[in-house]
Amino acid sequence: MSKEITSRETDYSQWYNDLVVKGELADHSAVRGCMVIRPYGFALWENMRDALDKMFKDTGHVNAYFPLFIPKSFLSKEAAHVEGFAKECAVVTHYRLKNDPDGGGVIVDPEAKLEEELIIRPTSETIIWNTYKDWVQSYRDLPLLINQWANVVRWEMRTRLFLRTAEFLWQEGHTAHATRDEAIEETEKMLGVYATFVEDFMALPVIKGIKTPGERFAGAEETYCIESLMQDGKALQAGTSHFLGQNFAKAFDVKFSNKENQLEYVWATSWGVSTRLVGALVMAHSDDQGLILPPKIAPFQVVIVPIYKGDEQKTMIDEKVNAIIGELKAMGIRVKYDDNDNARPGWKFAEYEMKGVPVRLAIGTRDLEKNVVEVARRDTKEKRVVPLEGIAQYLEILLADIQAGMFNKAKDYLDEHITPANSWDEFEKLLDEKGGFIAAHWDGTAETEEAIKEKTKATIRCIPLNNKQEEGKCILTGKPSKERVLFARAY
Amino acid sequence: MSKEITSRETDYSQWYNDLVVKGELADHSAVRGCMVIRPYGFALWENMRDALDKMFKDTGHVNAYFPLFIPKSFLSKEAAHVEGFAKECAVVTHYRLKNDPDGGGVIVDPEAKLEEELIIRPTSETIIWNTYKDWVQSYRDLPLLINQWANVVRWEMRTRLFLRTAEFLWQEGHTAHATRDEAIEETEKMLGVYATFVEDFMALPVIKGIKTPGERFAGAEETYCIESLMQDGKALQAGTSHFLGQNFAKAFDVKFSNKENQLEYVWATSWGVSTRLVGALVMAHSDDQGLILPPKIAPFQVVIVPIYKGDEQKTMIDEKVNAIIGELKAMGIRVKYDDNDNARPGWKFAEYEMKGVPVRLAIGTRDLEKNVVEVARRDTKEKRVVPLEGIAQYLEILLADIQAGMFNKAKDYLDEHITPANSWDEFEKLLDEKGGFIAAHWDGTAETEEAIKEKTKATIRCIPLNNKQEEGKCILTGKPSKERVLFARAY
Repeated sequence: MSKEITSRETDYSQWYNDLVVKGELADHSAVRGCMVIRPYGFALWENMRDALDKMFKDTGHVNAYFPLFIPKSFLSKEAAHVEGFAKECAVVTHYRLKNDPDGGGVIVDPEAKLEEELIIRPTSETIIWNTYKDWVQSYRDLPLLINQWANVVRWEMRTRLFLRTAEFLWQEGHTAHATRDEAIEETEKMLGVYATFVEDFMALPVIKGIKTPGERFAGAEETYCIESLMQDGKALQAGTSHFLGQNFAKAFDVKFSNKENQLEYVWATSWGVSTRLVGALVMAHSDDQGLILPPKIAPFQVVIVPIYKGDEQKTMIDEKVNAIIGELKAMGIRVKYDDNDNARPGWKFAEYEMKGVPVRLAIGTRDLEKNVVEVARRDTKEKRVVPLEGIAQYLEILLADIQAGMFNKAKDYLDEHITPANSWDEFEKLLDEKGGFIAAHWDGTAETEEAIKEKTKATIRCIPLNNKQEEGKCILTGKPSKERVLFARAY
Repeated sequence: MSKEITSRETDYSQWYNDLVVKGELADHSAVRGCMVIRPYGFALWENMRDALDKMFKDTGHVNAYFPLFIPKSFLSKEAAHVEGFAKECAVVTHYRLKNDPDGGGVIVDPEAKLEEELIIRPTSETIIWNTYKDWVQSYRDLPLLINQWANVVRWEMRTRLFLRTAEFLWQEGHTAHATRDEAIEETEKMLGVYATFVEDFMALPVIKGIKTPGERFAGAEETYCIESLMQDGKALQAGTSHFLGQNFAKAFDVKFSNKENQLEYVWATSWGVSTRLVGALVMAHSDDQGLILPPKIAPFQVVIVPIYKGDEQKTMIDEKVNAIIGELKAMGIRVKYDDNDNARPGWKFAEYEMKGVPVRLAIGTRDLEKNVVEVARRDTKEKRVVPLEGIAQYLEILLADIQAGMFNKAKDYLDEHITPANSWDEFEKLLDEKGGFIAAHWDGTAETEEAIKEKTKATIRCIPLNNKQEEGKCILTGKPSKERVLFARAY
């Protein structure tokens, strides 16, 4: 397979696909809309998952596991919820195959039809709240702070690797609380956890906000989100945290006796991020030569390539490199020594550039003589000859520097791409020519939101938290407005 | 809910179920045959998973993720494989729900029928080998050493929490090799990894062996297994490792060019363990008071219960306990301080006995004065008053001692329950009165194996590795035999 990548300018969408496939993050599978996450992509996801999991546990959450299947009648219990998910459900109707008596091979056994169809979970509020009913009787049983790492299925018609697939991996937190205030506090806390993770680990700045009623999660009273910006000026929702009110408690009759011994419905939140974040990571940072991965979550942070002729040189280099590797590993730095002799150094350089390894060391016998090594950083492509003495400490600082540099670059880009628009013409012009977020007044109605979407494909991404209150006129209708909201075209 | 546990003698099966449910490991769910793994049970599984995952990575394996869905035609490509799994498949036939125009609520949309039905993976050989076809061209692409952590579904008719559920969690390793020998070596290596894990972490001794052709995995040339023994004398298969020959390579046309540039089919292995291991753990070690968990994988290794009256005493105890906790955590010991004032110490003692926490400390103000603490170990129920000075080191040694003690107890039990039988009468008597493994001669035919199973419900659990060769006569038919095999009734 050619390792050539389509440039962003030529075809942004193809560039993204090339990065994912040729960078060996994922492949299309034989199953419609489903992907295979390859070992390199999965190692990246594992690092993201482990960092998030630690943050969840540090904020008092525990993991559990609920069934993959949701009885059809459960999904139907919360009206808005079923409305939101009914059109994209994978449905299990039978539980057995058999040999076709007419010789047509293996067929579904018509006698093994389920009495009630089972839906593959598109999200687990219903099966979980049906379970919480058994777990909650008293205020002493609250709060429940539970998270699940799982696969879910939403039958999307147009799919893209990581960004939108029929099956994807995610985590879904589902918490139960005695009071409205506590549930809202939890919703906001988890939004904060997501923002911290995406900014600190993925080096991707986000805007925190709330969704308009039209963009809320099906069944939520309020949806909080973090929005990020891709290099083509399109927005991408990186995570959501929902305040569910008492909607699911009412649908599944989950009550608790409070301290005054009165029965009340339980308050709920749910929050999730998915493998979609891998897509965001790829799109936000990479260039026309390949992936650029932030050190904190890169599967390998440093790769070392030996340059030598013959076994004698190799042995000398090995000895030095093994010492460096020992030091790096002791510092917790993930390092790979690529001494595969089936490939030339130049090929390896291109390979690790493609795969976005943050730092590459190249070391030959002449370097050994001078006691130096060539250090190349992936993000800026800067190369430098560095003394071998103290190299581990040097690399530790360099990795932190790359992490910060990637964040700052993305932050500058985001800041430059939040632009106010004060007239409809300006609004359309900005969307077409500059992209990014456009801060504009909106009259607060679903009709206007929908009309703008139809005219421009731009949606309201969020109303930023702590938004400045400012009198103005709706960009489309001219009706009065009290604050600007952020519009963008989005993934 | 009553915390009373049915005794083993009264009803072994109910005892097991009580332990799982009242020990809060898992619950039955509203979905037939599916369980909810509760936070305490999931924490146990996480510890098992993390230990295994490290062992897989240390032996050169990487993780990846393949689709949940398998096209029906894929499952049919390997004849023995489809034969083995067809009768227990959950089948997805539709991808959308809609509102019933006749007012019957939400129904499956008959227009959203899939062209080809999708099977929820019961195991992933087919979808994975269909993918390997794209990844393997040359001997340079081999070996592939890939593992997946995933949920799978097998539509079992009679289910039991952890031991047999329609959906379960597991890992499945799928490796591809250039030679038969290398694949067999891998199969045996992974059997060794499983045996080490189950013995060292779960404190459960196992017998390594191979299955008879009748008990092989559907599609394997050879199935290796580890067998363990439960307290009721029944065997439980704790893990399997399969040498798949070239069966799946042929079914999916996966060839590679060898060093001589000739095309050959690729050699395969697969190996898996599942949440079933949690069931084995519970059944093997627990008693009539509750779970007994081995320290290496227990969610909490030490629980500390304060005994006090009033805030002043509490503050004094807190101070001392926090110091101990700091020390224990620094040593990597998982400790919980239960200072919940809604429950009395006696209730807490019973609770942690039920949950199988290996060590319980009880500390009151009088203990503080004397600078001692009461240490109770769960496995032997031994209590001892121990000086607070050096308590962390004392506990570290105690935990190792408990781990070893649990293994030795189970090993003695296993050794006492491998009994030779030399006549049919003896065979039946041993099965009914003593249980465990019975070492007996077998004529090597599937007919005899089946006949013995029908007469006694005992199956051949395995032919032990490095089995002693010994002339004898089949226990049922009297035909000649060259070695004893191990029979048992099994889960």
